[in-house]
Amino acid sequence: MNKEFKVGVLGATGTVGQRFILHLHNHPFFKLVALGASSRSAGQPYIKATRWKQSKPIPESVKDVIIKECTTENFKDCDIVFSGLDHDVAGPIESGLREAQVAVFSNAKNYRRDPLVPLVVPLINTDHYKIIPAQQEPLGLKKGYIVANANCSTTALVVPLAALEKSFGPLELVQATTLQAISGSGYPGLPSLDILDNVVPYIGSEEDKMEWETYKILGGINPDMKSFEYHQASPLKVSASCNRVPVIDGHMVCASVKFASPNKPTPEQVMEAFKNYKCDAQSVGAPSAPAQVITVHEEEDRPQPRLDRDHQNGAGVNVGRVREDSIFDIKFVVLANNVQIGAATSSVMNAEVAALQGYV
Amino acid sequence: MNKEFKVGVLGATGTVGQRFILHLHNHPFFKLVALGASSRSAGQPYIKATRWKQSKPIPESVKDVIIKECTTENFKDCDIVFSGLDHDVAGPIESGLREAQVAVFSNAKNYRRDPLVPLVVPLINTDHYKIIPAQQEPLGLKKGYIVANANCSTTALVVPLAALEKSFGPLELVQATTLQAISGSGYPGLPSLDILDNVVPYIGSEEDKMEWETYKILGGINPDMKSFEYHQASPLKVSASCNRVPVIDGHMVCASVKFASPNKPTPEQVMEAFKNYKCDAQSVGAPSAPAQVITVHEEEDRPQPRLDRDHQNGAGVNVGRVREDSIFDIKFVVLANNVQIGAATSSVMNAEVAALQGYV
Amino acid sequence: MNKEFKVGVLGATGTVGQRFILHLHNHPFFKLVALGASSRSAGQPYIKATRWKQSKPIPESVKDVIIKECTTENFKDCDIVFSGLDHDVAGPIESGLREAQVAVFSNAKNYRRDPLVPLVVPLINTDHYKIIPAQQEPLGLKKGYIVANANCSTTALVVPLAALEKSFGPLELVQATTLQAISGSGYPGLPSLDILDNVVPYIGSEEDKMEWETYKILGGINPDMKSFEYHQASPLKVSASCNRVPVIDGHMVCASVKFASPNKPTPEQVMEAFKNYKCDAQSVGAPSAPAQVITVHEEEDRPQPRLDRDHQNGAGVNVGRVREDSIFDIKFVVLANNVQIGAATSSVMNAEVAALQGYV
Amino acid sequence: MNKEFKVGVLGATGTVGQRFILHLHNHPFFKLVALGASSRSAGQPYIKATRWKQSKPIPESVKDVIIKECTTENFKDCDIVFSGLDHDVAGPIESGLREAQVAVFSNAKNYRRDPLVPLVVPLINTDHYKIIPAQQEPLGLKKGYIVANANCSTTALVVPLAALEKSFGPLELVQATTLQAISGSGYPGLPSLDILDNVVPYIGSEEDKMEWETYKILGGINPDMKSFEYHQASPLKVSASCNRVPVIDGHMVCASVKFASPNKPTPEQVMEAFKNYKCDAQSVGAPSAPAQVITVHEEEDRPQPRLDRDHQNGAGVNVGRVREDSIFDIKFVVLANNVQIGAATSSVMNAEVAALQGYV
Repeated sequence: MNKEFKVGVLGATGTVGQRFILHLHNHPFFKLVALGASSRSAGQPYIKATRWKQSKPIPESVKDVIIKECTTENFKDCDIVFSGLDHDVAGPIESGLREAQVAVFSNAKNYRRDPLVPLVVPLINTDHYKIIPAQQEPLGLKKGYIVANANCSTTALVVPLAALEKSFGPLELVQATTLQAISGSGYPGLPSLDILDNVVPYIGSEEDKMEWETYKILGGINPDMKSFEYHQASPLKVSASCNRVPVIDGHMVCASVKFASPNKPTPEQVMEAFKNYKCDAQSVGAPSAPAQVITVHEEEDRPQPRLDRDHQNGAGVNVGRVREDSIFDIKFVVLANNVQIGAATSSVMNAEVAALQGYV
Repeated sequence: MNKEFKVGVLGATGTVGQRFILHLHNHPFFKLVALGASSRSAGQPYIKATRWKQSKPIPESVKDVIIKECTTENFKDCDIVFSGLDHDVAGPIESGLREAQVAVFSNAKNYRRDPLVPLVVPLINTDHYKIIPAQQEPLGLKKGYIVANANCSTTALVVPLAALEKSFGPLELVQATTLQAISGSGYPGLPSLDILDNVVPYIGSEEDKMEWETYKILGGINPDMKSFEYHQASPLKVSASCNRVPVIDGHMVCASVKFASPNKPTPEQVMEAFKNYKCDAQSVGAPSAPAQVITVHEEEDRPQPRLDRDHQNGAGVNVGRVREDSIFDIKFVVLANNVQIGAATSSVMNAEVAALQGYV
Repeated sequence: MNKEFKVGVLGATGTVGQRFILHLHNHPFFKLVALGASSRSAGQPYIKATRWKQSKPIPESVKDVIIKECTTENFKDCDIVFSGLDHDVAGPIESGLREAQVAVFSNAKNYRRDPLVPLVVPLINTDHYKIIPAQQEPLGLKKGYIVANANCSTTALVVPLAALEKSFGPLELVQATTLQAISGSGYPGLPSLDILDNVVPYIGSEEDKMEWETYKILGGINPDMKSFEYHQASPLKVSASCNRVPVIDGHMVCASVKFASPNKPTPEQVMEAFKNYKCDAQSVGAPSAPAQVITVHEEEDRPQPRLDRDHQNGAGVNVGRVREDSIFDIKFVVLANNVQIGAATSSVMNAEVAALQGYV
Repeated sequence: MNKEFKVGVLGATGTVGQRFILHLHNHPFFKLVALGASSRSAGQPYIKATRWKQSKPIPESVKDVIIKECTTENFKDCDIVFSGLDHDVAGPIESGLREAQVAVFSNAKNYRRDPLVPLVVPLINTDHYKIIPAQQEPLGLKKGYIVANANCSTTALVVPLAALEKSFGPLELVQATTLQAISGSGYPGLPSLDILDNVVPYIGSEEDKMEWETYKILGGINPDMKSFEYHQASPLKVSASCNRVPVIDGHMVCASVKFASPNKPTPEQVMEAFKNYKCDAQSVGAPSAPAQVITVHEEEDRPQPRLDRDHQNGAGVNVGRVREDSIFDIKFVVLANNVQIGAATSSVMNAEVAALQGYV
């Protein structure tokens, strides 16, 4: 890639925004030119407006950048905008930028269910970008569009599911119980009194998201390239139970799957399929793509959030305990770094693939 | 009950032993007369030999009791012995006491799978005591026997299952994912470096125990009163996935169930069945029996370990989030206090029922 | 006490208010008659308006009580009002009730520094009630007044200091470093991302409070009974460093003290003085007074928050590791339950003493 | 440095040993050639013998290295040996290697108080190497010697003290209260039941180490180069109180200091002195030396273990909250990464300086 793209970050003072800044620092072809936040922060240098909560320090080049309000006018010169905005404000800001011909890669949930917006986990379905012309057409756009990335717990689950479907054909049943990190609720997020020495067996609308987003991500695009073919058209059923646990970063999912085909793979074959799984982000050379999409752990007690969440900078997922299930066919444990591949890394990798494929 | 029984505690310096001592203190008809521990502790006053780890203080009456070695000779004058011994030593000590005509109520796993030893959760299957004569007969015993209580995570799961089968007939499928407290691994148990800011998705042989013990507890006794009718003879299949989480006390289980009958209850009917469930420990007036076996929580985010584990001194179980499941019929969350109803309280309540029913 | 007092609770839906409710439930001579909260909650039954965060369930008798707004009119028929209000609203509400002849016992900080309001730790200085007539006089009151209790970390420190001064005369230097529980910051209070696997070495204005409040509490009243004689008139200097740690309840303080007298007590003498310390709340028979004000632990690693915070329902304090200090004279560790003796229990015990001494 | 040194690691399977391996991987002039552990592990490939507990994966080049028993014979061909051995076995193994002409850099406590062994924090007193000839002489050695690094909590405290003495002359009083991470107790170390939701106000012999080691490190060498001049010869008194808190890595110390000189620096001058402090490890170009020895934080709530322990790979220390003290002169908070500069990084940096100064 011998081109450089001007990129902006919306919601730059929030926790996802801080991850975007770290991730984009020294990026080979994305050049960070604008930071946006609320009107309360606008006009201040970044270091004054943010409560930096990362263990890596703020990049020097960012400290004194003056924060702008998140208006179309302020970001229309960007080629790409990454949005770490809260969903209660993200909608009109993101669509405004799209109309200003900007490619918007969003971590917010607002457009995930839009029938023309690709919901993309970069380790799986960047081929959904083929819907982009159909998204632009009714708006009379040549350049701008919105690409959403998935919810963090969906991301953890769906990557091994994609690998399984690629090797063994359609899944019929997926049961998933999550143990999710507190960073998934943002900052200030969960009060400490609610989670220390505790588990909260409920995360608002998370179970519905995991079920619904999986259908869209694992689905395809209809031949007219104008609509998605949701996976629930196939016999797939997903049932999710979501829990919050006192872990900083790293969502775990205990998953059980049943294949549609009567030819069931063995646990060994499943592990091989996981190890061999490749994605387009790797083949097009996206800088953020992990060398190994799915790392398979063979120790009986791995993966674990604290020990495995930072492998490959959290850009891949970890799987372990692959074994037979007495009700389903196979069960296993997945761990994904919810603040990396579950959030900022997904958006950036999505944009890298889009840029390398000529969508920007 | 106008009789008093002499009781002893084996493994009295361990964490389960400490719970036995607290539980038996001021008991209406069990009189604690002997404490046993390893030869290393024998001969010392209790307060010197134990590292007391309970938030309630050591009862004054126990502090200066001299610890005995766990020999048959030392405990043969007890009517009842409670065993909090580790499984690596429990076997011969417990069977020796049985042969000395002592009723042994054990928290160890050694005899749980014995075809003549009842595996009893006192909130469910104290009717399994009918096997006791068959256990005594080949040994030529009139009085002694062994009763085992279940593994702590099994206990959490199986109480609501029993309530469901009582109201709606046999279950066909049970999927259970646990989030288990660290106290389940005893003391010193899990190293802090393994669990702080972490989840361990593996507990040695726990998944197998949950599956197998459920078959025995939910099963019956054959008409000859000489053998158990294990529940897997019915179409029941249990699949368990076990995780350790950074919680002090209180095992949570996310459970999904499918009924054998085509007439499926609604979530509301399931909640009613849970609320109305009664057990023999209540009807015979066991002092440790909870007023309510299953407490149903209607808030969307309950039960939670820290807030709900101490209801009714941890003698019942808590259920919440009862809802439909897109793969199974119904899913819900259970919380049981693993160190109370999951351990010491079970043994004591089992013995109370046995005493009240004339088995001691 | 053969009289019954009508009491109300302000801020009844907050964490301190919930503790007041539990504490006043079944009280021998305080009868809870009114609950107050913000206008948002007013008019609702208590169980609907509160997010109950206690491990003991809501008393049945309280569930359906209709919450009132915290106006003078609504609470003027109470003999006593307990205030768990936030300091940003507590001021005028508390003074309004005082003028309506109500005795107000407040956990808020607003009047702690008022030169006519007693700042009372019930285990130490209920004799400061002698200032009450001087507080009432300029307002022309016969009955109403305000009594404040101390900040939770001050309370932990100052009880052993009072015991030391009583036995060995004035202190000259006190160095205190705290390790404070998260419940001290209320609810929602500290975000979980700030404290899990972390320490925060700063608590806003806490160090200043610990220093200043200690001077007032350990001081006396001038002979005219119209003003306090602050302790810093003596050579006492207090230096505090405050830290937040990932502990639910229980503030620890590592304290070092230097006596003014050249006759230094030994650690053994200090432990004796702690054990023998008595207070007026005990001698007048306050129902909430602990049997032992200061529990001295002789194990080298006690007290510990999780194991010792609930002794005597958290109504006393725990001291351990009493030893010589190479710079000061003596150092030791104190633990106090910040939500009991550090908050609600203090207010209630203060009111009990006031009632028993005829101030109500 | 255009020379390469053959280095070995003793105790290679332990937590400090694992850190040594990560630290020495790709080192510019230390080449790892031998790994030693107990006879139980000897003969096995490293990956089989170790339970790897680091979030960075095992270097590929190390996985299949066969572990040797820690005998003199097995390590005598190394130029340098790093010892992460437990103190109960370290003594004779380390002295045996010294006699075999090997330079031993030890994290164990065995020789720290030896009157001829330098106790070196590489950010402070590598000039103590001048004692090495006096250590070798009575043993008739030309090459081998032992250098110890300090206890992890001592290291945190003593770096800012050294900076203060360099700028403002001798200290008279140092009061230190620690909040120490669980990794300081090794693996398995502290049981999780002891520290979750808890503080343990005692760490065996830690307070004594902090006091005594500080005297040796801040002291000098007598003119004959044959003995140390301990700092307690000056009026310095250190008083330490040590606590364990539920934090993975990173020891915090709340320190108060009094200077001997009547000219007291202001907090601003102290911050300047911290910022400007340099050490020999920097000037000789030790690869592990941090760019900034002491990072001064100006936010009121920093440093914090989770956010600041990994700055500069944990090779420097962090200071914050520099302010006046009403009893001493100045108080502040220090944070040091106990597993990096408090352990393995210290040994490696000590060896780097020794190599660069010609001691190897």
